[in-house]
Amino acid sequence: MKVLVTGGCGYIGAHTIVDLINHGFDVVSVDSNIRSSTQLLDGVEKITGKKIRNYKVDLCNLEDTHAVFHENRDIVGVIHFAALKTVPESVADPLMYFHNNLTSLINVLKCIKEFNVPNFVFSSSCSVYGNTKALPVVEETPLGEAQSPYARTKQMGEQIIEDYSRVNDTQSILLRYFNPVGAHPSALIGELPLGRPDNLVPVITQTAIGKIPSLTVFGADYDTRDGSCVRDYIHVTDIANAHTKALQYLIENRNDQNCEVFNLGTGNGVTVLEAIKAFEKISGVKVNYTLGPRRDGDVIAIYANNTRAKEKLGWEPQIGIEDCMRTAWQWEVSLRNKVLSN
Amino acid sequence: MKVLVTGGCGYIGAHTIVDLINHGFDVVSVDSNIRSSTQLLDGVEKITGKKIRNYKVDLCNLEDTHAVFHENRDIVGVIHFAALKTVPESVADPLMYFHNNLTSLINVLKCIKEFNVPNFVFSSSCSVYGNTKALPVVEETPLGEAQSPYARTKQMGEQIIEDYSRVNDTQSILLRYFNPVGAHPSALIGELPLGRPDNLVPVITQTAIGKIPSLTVFGADYDTRDGSCVRDYIHVTDIANAHTKALQYLIENRNDQNCEVFNLGTGNGVTVLEAIKAFEKISGVKVNYTLGPRRDGDVIAIYANNTRAKEKLGWEPQIGIEDCMRTAWQWEVSLRNKVLSN
Repeated sequence: MKVLVTGGCGYIGAHTIVDLINHGFDVVSVDSNIRSSTQLLDGVEKITGKKIRNYKVDLCNLEDTHAVFHENRDIVGVIHFAALKTVPESVADPLMYFHNNLTSLINVLKCIKEFNVPNFVFSSSCSVYGNTKALPVVEETPLGEAQSPYARTKQMGEQIIEDYSRVNDTQSILLRYFNPVGAHPSALIGELPLGRPDNLVPVITQTAIGKIPSLTVFGADYDTRDGSCVRDYIHVTDIANAHTKALQYLIENRNDQNCEVFNLGTGNGVTVLEAIKAFEKISGVKVNYTLGPRRDGDVIAIYANNTRAKEKLGWEPQIGIEDCMRTAWQWEVSLRNKVLSN
Repeated sequence: MKVLVTGGCGYIGAHTIVDLINHGFDVVSVDSNIRSSTQLLDGVEKITGKKIRNYKVDLCNLEDTHAVFHENRDIVGVIHFAALKTVPESVADPLMYFHNNLTSLINVLKCIKEFNVPNFVFSSSCSVYGNTKALPVVEETPLGEAQSPYARTKQMGEQIIEDYSRVNDTQSILLRYFNPVGAHPSALIGELPLGRPDNLVPVITQTAIGKIPSLTVFGADYDTRDGSCVRDYIHVTDIANAHTKALQYLIENRNDQNCEVFNLGTGNGVTVLEAIKAFEKISGVKVNYTLGPRRDGDVIAIYANNTRAKEKLGWEPQIGIEDCMRTAWQWEVSLRNKVLSN
């Protein structure tokens, strides 16, 4: 059974391809490589022993997207990761985010409709909940005011898919990721930010290894237990596995619910400062950090109720915060060793 | 002072061009004529004595849109009407609506940014409020669940403009129309639905004149005073004048509020059955109607609190429901006479 993965050269896309292959799926990837390279796909091939075809196509181009679907009429589903995802960049240039994230989604759905693809899984985000007070969030928690254009594109993406699914035969699942972190235990794939990273964990590991001089904690005066933001860090292989389970669920359970939503988090809220401490503990490396001002677009605190994904998808996160940090650190070290050996 | 009007060949666009010209503005129009013809512009020219240039350009094409802006660098503002607007069609084909209404808006904003256009007025809709219980609605009323993809595109459009305006110099106004009806008192321009109309008033006048055999009232069992939906019918020349006033307000009041929202309604809720009776009274013609089932995508009852537009824009609706019906009827009769004289 063949699956089309968009954004397959990205962080979560690459880990998901590994998990799909481990569960017997064939995979083709579409990735423009505008914000990625094929480096992670090389890692995927080393881990799985399989060659992955990537179409270097910008999904904002309908004609090119159509050609990929035309060549792959036998797919059982699409997992749509491809999107811009940097919160501060989206605040500075909202039109780029609306154009890119919405046009690519609409084009993919047009092709899904034309080629009667039965199953669709969408990368959504806990940022759709906004600054909700109702913690932990369940899937029915009303969506709050999006804190950034990035988050808006995820809210809009969900709405587009819901409206689409209501009148078309495709079954869809929206997966709301909390904070994906860590790397494959092989240290052959992991997060590969182009330029200066924005997400906490690569900033931690890059600070620890000396790539960047110090880490700024954005906001230390929030109403949380230590003043820093609270997040639900979930290991990327756990996130990846949820996609396989979501696809299997769609294939095995054709029902009249055309669009279902699942939270993907551990259920545990961890502060930014606690995450830094967990890293220091497992690595034995002190992280040079300073407390800085709040950052536009950040929500204060969010963590998941993941009961629905456990019950309906049979999914269970396996990896805690310390192993998240351990695999992230191994990946960072492997990146340095690779540079040193070149 | 030159204004670019998108969708200038449409119902509200054409009436607005007349009002802009009457207040001393020059106007250029962009309209793809996908859902319109240049017939209303001919009427505008008869009323105003001015020739209006229309660029037949699909705003979903960025290159063509860019060329229009490049040729008209001296505009003081853009009034953006162009959009698909048929609720049932949007339910049946959401992707067409998301693609068309969002891409065109994003392209227009990209050009506004590039050419530093200082002022922007957007056609929004009371449908952004969804099925709210808080009547009359004020601009701060929380937006409810959109009842159709059409309404979603208006909610999303507002959000895109808000996020855009936050980080760019353009000042924007979002005008939330209630139910625009009626026609110019000259009967030279009016609503010109292509194919079978979906809005109540053209259905009433077409039924009265015999173009369509009968009218269906969609839903007679709602919890309203007579069971039919409640709407706030506002005369199209009043709506048109609000655009002129909005533009003048933006030109005269540069402030730090980059995006402001105004309701455009009369403040009076009128049921569908009452609207039919008002028509019968002023026309002396009985309307053949039947009570039918509810229609997907309709909100139950909505009418405006228009205090903000009155206070800040100095706008005041002039025309009541009977004159709405009278001008709509004169327009329908003039369309018949035109056919007969050909």
